[in-house]
Order: sequence, then structure tokens, then C-alpha cells
Amino acid sequence: MKDITTIVTDLCRGAKAASRELAALDTAAKDAIIADFAALLVSEKDALLAANELDLAAADENGVPKVMLDRLKLTDARIEGIADACLAVCHLPDPCGEGERFKRPNGLEISAVRVPMGVVAMIYEARPNVTADAATLCIKSGNACVLRGGKEALHTNRAIVTLLHSALEKNGVSTGAVAFIDDPTREGTAALMNMRGLVDVLIPRGGKGLIRFVVKNAHIPVIETGAGNCHLYVDEGADLNMALAVTVNAKMQRPSVCNAIETLLVHEKEAAAFLPLLRNATEGKLILRGCARCCEILPEIETASETDYETEYNDYILACRVVDSIDEAIAHINRYNTGHSEAIMTRSLKSASRFKAEVDAAAVYVNASTRFTDGGEFGFGAEIGISTQKLHARGPMGLKALTTVKYLIEGDGQVRS
Amino acid sequence: MKDITTIVTDLCRGAKAASRELAALDTAAKDAIIADFAALLVSEKDALLAANELDLAAADENGVPKVMLDRLKLTDARIEGIADACLAVCHLPDPCGEGERFKRPNGLEISAVRVPMGVVAMIYEARPNVTADAATLCIKSGNACVLRGGKEALHTNRAIVTLLHSALEKNGVSTGAVAFIDDPTREGTAALMNMRGLVDVLIPRGGKGLIRFVVKNAHIPVIETGAGNCHLYVDEGADLNMALAVTVNAKMQRPSVCNAIETLLVHEKEAAAFLPLLRNATEGKLILRGCARCCEILPEIETASETDYETEYNDYILACRVVDSIDEAIAHINRYNTGHSEAIMTRSLKSASRFKAEVDAAAVYVNASTRFTDGGEFGFGAEIGISTQKLHARGPMGLKALTTVKYLIEGDGQVRS
Repeated sequence: MKDITTIVTDLCRGAKAASRELAALDTAAKDAIIADFAALLVSEKDALLAANELDLAAADENGVPKVMLDRLKLTDARIEGIADACLAVCHLPDPCGEGERFKRPNGLEISAVRVPMGVVAMIYEARPNVTADAATLCIKSGNACVLRGGKEALHTNRAIVTLLHSALEKNGVSTGAVAFIDDPTREGTAALMNMRGLVDVLIPRGGKGLIRFVVKNAHIPVIETGAGNCHLYVDEGADLNMALAVTVNAKMQRPSVCNAIETLLVHEKEAAAFLPLLRNATEGKLILRGCARCCEILPEIETASETDYETEYNDYILACRVVDSIDEAIAHINRYNTGHSEAIMTRSLKSASRFKAEVDAAAVYVNASTRFTDGGEFGFGAEIGISTQKLHARGPMGLKALTTVKYLIEGDGQVRS
Repeated sequence: MKDITTIVTDLCRGAKAASRELAALDTAAKDAIIADFAALLVSEKDALLAANELDLAAADENGVPKVMLDRLKLTDARIEGIADACLAVCHLPDPCGEGERFKRPNGLEISAVRVPMGVVAMIYEARPNVTADAATLCIKSGNACVLRGGKEALHTNRAIVTLLHSALEKNGVSTGAVAFIDDPTREGTAALMNMRGLVDVLIPRGGKGLIRFVVKNAHIPVIETGAGNCHLYVDEGADLNMALAVTVNAKMQRPSVCNAIETLLVHEKEAAAFLPLLRNATEGKLILRGCARCCEILPEIETASETDYETEYNDYILACRVVDSIDEAIAHINRYNTGHSEAIMTRSLKSASRFKAEVDAAAVYVNASTRFTDGGEFGFGAEIGISTQKLHARGPMGLKALTTVKYLIEGDGQVRS
């Protein structure tokens, strides 16, 4: 049996070779692969659900928390949603070949043209829709991909990749274009992170632990995504009913995802009114943990520790803190946030301006839920991830984030003097 | 005395604080700092030349090669050139605040706005003009910078940074905005590469060894730049006189820079005519090293080893190889190149198209010298470096490459359903 480094190297070599086939395809040819895959997702739904059942049973046995099971679970409706998301990618404009052309005084004609990256590697955790989204976006942008999903979704991911390979084969493209590391150990991940010269970009998508592990150990370019320690700040004078609705949505509509909030900050003038409102609206469904001043107002809640403010719960838990001013709120956010999504509820133009200018994050909201940080919600179509770093792409990353630029310079013998 | 990690941490903290001041400045205020600095470069020319003399004397004593001395040397004309380059940056449009605004069906108004990165760190080698260029481009784009130049240019860099600090002070901005690591040991570099949370991007600019060291050890986002193992391929049927002029320019006009070529590839049908032409034009000034077939044509030259094809000489040495076909030329280039600049000399439309599509590099030339890969020559103004990676920026990086995007989302209570 081959060792895992050899297996991963072979997969990456295959992906590199297939990346040249993909780069040469026109938009219609790429769309045909995606449309065939979307059709297979629906026609082979039963096989997918059966594979997903195996994963769910194993996860349940291993005591995986309920919110995580929700991330893992496929249903008829979710499969159709995944297929629709793939088809939506067909309707997006192809970024490859876009660009501009300009002429220099010496007669050189320079074109700056968008081209595929080459090979995009993804390391991700439980959600199996990432397998379909990532592969589809890579195909549309002319990239091969190497996928390494979480062990919890191994059977489901394997089944999805089988369908992707069928769609590639049907269209005469090497199956190496979507390579799948069918080994959920850390060794596979470690090998992938060292494929210098074979992998052009590595996108880890998951919790803080995964991101930190990748950033620390990768020797290839990385885009950090998805870690979301997000905050909502209720400013002095905010509309408290609106603030309540937005807080409940941002925390509870889907707590397992990265754009859900983890900490609520409330101006001291509003805390005595707002915290009981929130407690009453969420009692029995949401656990609140607060600073000393929160606990004075809601004596029944637990005290929040430093660790709470650092934690992305991904669960029905919300840390709370009373602040003296917007300055304290911004300072708290810039200390603990992961550069994802941050919101202020306010009626003050000055507070809104300061919050937008001073909070350092990919998406800064005024009077709206952080849950909108999403490629689809922004109108970009499906996304490959949400970048929490400042390089290359920030926020929801769509097709353009999967391309690079190439300068083509045409002359008739120009030399530099 | 403080240890180097503490010193670097303090510098980065100061830069982070100053980055907020810079981000809040309008374009005119940033331009005023740059104009004052450019004026100081000229008025304090003698001090700069004196500092440069110290560096040149030390370098000469340490046996630094002649081409490297050329990179280090300042002259009246070069200082004026540096000042002019700084002033040219004042005339470039400020990328900060540029962006687009769109409205979603649910009423959310989303702005995607260019904002400074925050703190940009640079590690670079001998050329002192990098200190002025990098600081100027960072100031114009609203970023603080942390500079760590080569030990060969320590006195010169120190003198330039003193002028930058004067210009900042005159305009009421903290001198922390241009931090200088006045310690040329590897420990300083290593400390800088670990400033997670304080440095937003690290740009190493120098030879392959430096880039490799940084990529291997950095735990912050990196843009690889400057390693240039560039090639020129003379295709079957090329205009040999034009090919000769371009080859000589690409190799010899300034061999110490990254966009100079290091290897010449010649189609077998042209080799017997072209290689003697090249030898005759460069005899006594350029050392040729060739494959077995080159040595048959030019028996007096040395044999090129595998190492030669891997080497960025930065010197008056050129590796040569006879190839059977354009396929062999492209394969050689894609095996040995560093993703910088590659050129073909050809009369064939098909060869030109294939070379442009299949060669994987930031800049691909048809019938022109690779020496044009440069922010100024492309019309972008001064550059912070030439990216040889595919992420964030590729090729000459100007002001826009030093910014990121921030999404500002304004609503009136929207929640996600």
C-alpha cells in the first residue's frame, strides 16, 4: 500500500495535469459539466441520502453535538438546494479571459487577462455541501481542485465526488480535475499543505483550530476563511425592538455557521431594558453568559469568562457585555474578532460612521443581521468561502477570487533603454 | 538592552497605532508627506551620499561582487531619480475609498470600499531605493510600514528613514508610521515573520534564498516577489537580428535585476546561426554556458549543468540550451522558471499563441525584452515589488496591491429568513 504522502502527491500531480485541460475549456464546456453534475445530484439523491445516513449514524455514535449534526445532515430539500446552487453557477459570468488591454508609448501592447489559478486545494470540516460548491466553482473558473473534507462526512463526500467524476467523464475531462483525499487523518492534511509547485492556493474552511493549524504548517499560499467570532453592538438610543429582532436572527437562525454572532455588546444606557427583553424572547432556547454588570440585571445567568469572549460557540450560547461607550465596544471587537462580520444597531449617524470606519472586519453592518455575509446574499452567486484575511480576497469569495491575472506583452523588438 | 523580539514587537505595535492615523488622512495630507520627503532627499543629498559611502566601503572590504555593489551605490542622478519616483506617486490616484455600491432586493445597501491593509512589512536586500519606494507607496495607500533592509545598505537606509521621519513629523503624523528594524541579523527577520495580529502582509523582496526562508518560516500572510529565473526562447524562423538585440538587452542592460534573463533557449534550426551571432556581439563581456549541442557550435564555452538552469545569476553569465521544438522550450520554462517574466522571439502566430497560453508566469512577452516587467514601464507608477505568486497580486504591484476591500452594509433592521 502506498503511504499517504505518495497518494496525495499523485493526486496533486493528476490535478496539475487536469488543470491544463480545464484552463483550455470554453465557458459552455465548463457549464455542461456543472449542469450534468447538478442533474446527477437530483437523480442519485437516494444514494447520497444513504451515504449521509452512514455518516450521521457514526457521528451520533461518536457523540458529535447536535448543531454539528445539523451541519452534516442532508435532506431532499438540501440536496435540491445544492443542485440549484450549482446550476446558479452556470448563470454567472465566466471570469476567465476578462481583462483590459492598453498600449504603451513605446508601442508595447499589454493585456492583463484573468486566468485560472491552476490547482485549488480545500480543507474543510463537516458540511458536505462544501464539496459540491467548491468543485463547481473551481470547474467554472477553470481550476482543478484537491478536496479534503472532514472525517464526519467521509461517506457523503465520497458519494458526491463519484457524481462529479461521472460528470467529468461524460464531458471528456480527466477525473483528476476533482481530486479527493479519501483519508481523514491529519497526515493527509499535512502532506497537502506541503505541495509546493503543485498546489497554487490552499483554502482551509472551518473552525479556528483548523485555520490555525493550516496557517502554522502550510508552505503554500493560504487564504484563511470562515472563523467567525462575530459581535453585535446595541448603541445608546438604538431602536430596541429592531435590535432584538436582529440579535435573535443573528444568533439563532442558524447558530452553527460562521456569520452567526457569538457576543452581544450593549451600551450601559440600554442594558437594563434590552437584556431582559432578550432573555424573555429566548428563554429556554438560548444560554446567556454575561459580565458582572449583565449579571446584576439578569442574576440568573452565568458569568462570562475571558474564554467566552474568545469562543466561537457555534451553538445556542451568547456571551454578553455591558460597555460604557462606542469606544469600548469598538475596542472589544477589534481585540476579539476574527475579521469576519460585525454589526451595530444605532440611530446615530456619527456612531454608524465611526463603527464603519474603525471596526476592522470583512463585513461591517449598520442595522442589519450579520447572517447576510454570504456570496448568495450579496448577489455574487455561490461562494468558495468567506475570507477573513486581507490578502487577495476579503469577505465572500466567488469566481473571481479563484483567478489570477497574467500580463501578455506584445512587441516588435522593443528593448529597454 | 531589550532583546530583538521585544524591539520588533514594539515597532510593530507603534506601526499598528500609526496605521490608524494614516488610514484617516485624506489624499492631500498623504501627498504632502511624500512631497516633503522628496524635497528632503534632494536637499540632504550629501548626507545620503556620505552614508552610502560607508556602506560601499564596508561592502568592498567584505568582497561583495561588483554587480551587487552597483545595486547598492547611490549617485546624484540616482538620488534625483528616487525623489522623482516619489513625486510621481503623488500624481497617482489614491485607491482608498474607491469602490462600488449596490442595492439588494431586500433593501440592504452594500458598499465594497478599498481600504488600507494596515501594516505592511518588507524584508529586502541591498538596493536602498526600495526603502524610499516602499515607504512612499505605503504612505500613499494609507498603510504603516515596517522595513527591514539588507545589512549592506544599513547606513544608507538609516539615513533615508531619518528623512522619512522628518517628513512625517512636519505633517503631524507619528514616526511609527515608518518603522525601521535597525538590526541586520536573521533574528530580527525571524521575529518580524511571527507578528501575527500586528502585521497584515509581509513582502520579501530579494533572491530565491530570502524568499524561500520567508515562505518556510512566516506565520503571517506573505507575497512572494522578485525571484526572477527568466528565459528567452528564439523560435524557428525568428528574426535573428531582432532576437539578438532583445537577448542582449534582456541579459546585459542591467544584469543585477530580477527581470533580466538567465537562460536562452534556441530552436535547433536557428542555433547554428544565432549562437555565433550572440557570441560575437558579447565576446569578453558575457560568459556563455551551454548544453552539449551549444558546445558543438561554440566549442570554447563551458558546459551548463542542471544547477546553471536553476540559477538566477544576476551577473554577466547566460545559460544556453538548444531545443527540438517549442514544446521542449515551454516544458523547460515551466520546469525552471520562478513565475516572473518569459519571452519568445517568433514570426509565427501559432507559436506566439501557444507560448502566451501555456507558459505559466506573471508576464509573458512576444518579441520584446523581459526588462519591461516594471511598474513604471507598465504605466502603474512606482511599484512595491513584482509578485511571482498568483494570490492577491501578480506582476508589478502598485498602490492597489497595498489595499484590501471592506464591505459596508446598511439596513433598517433586515434579518435573514
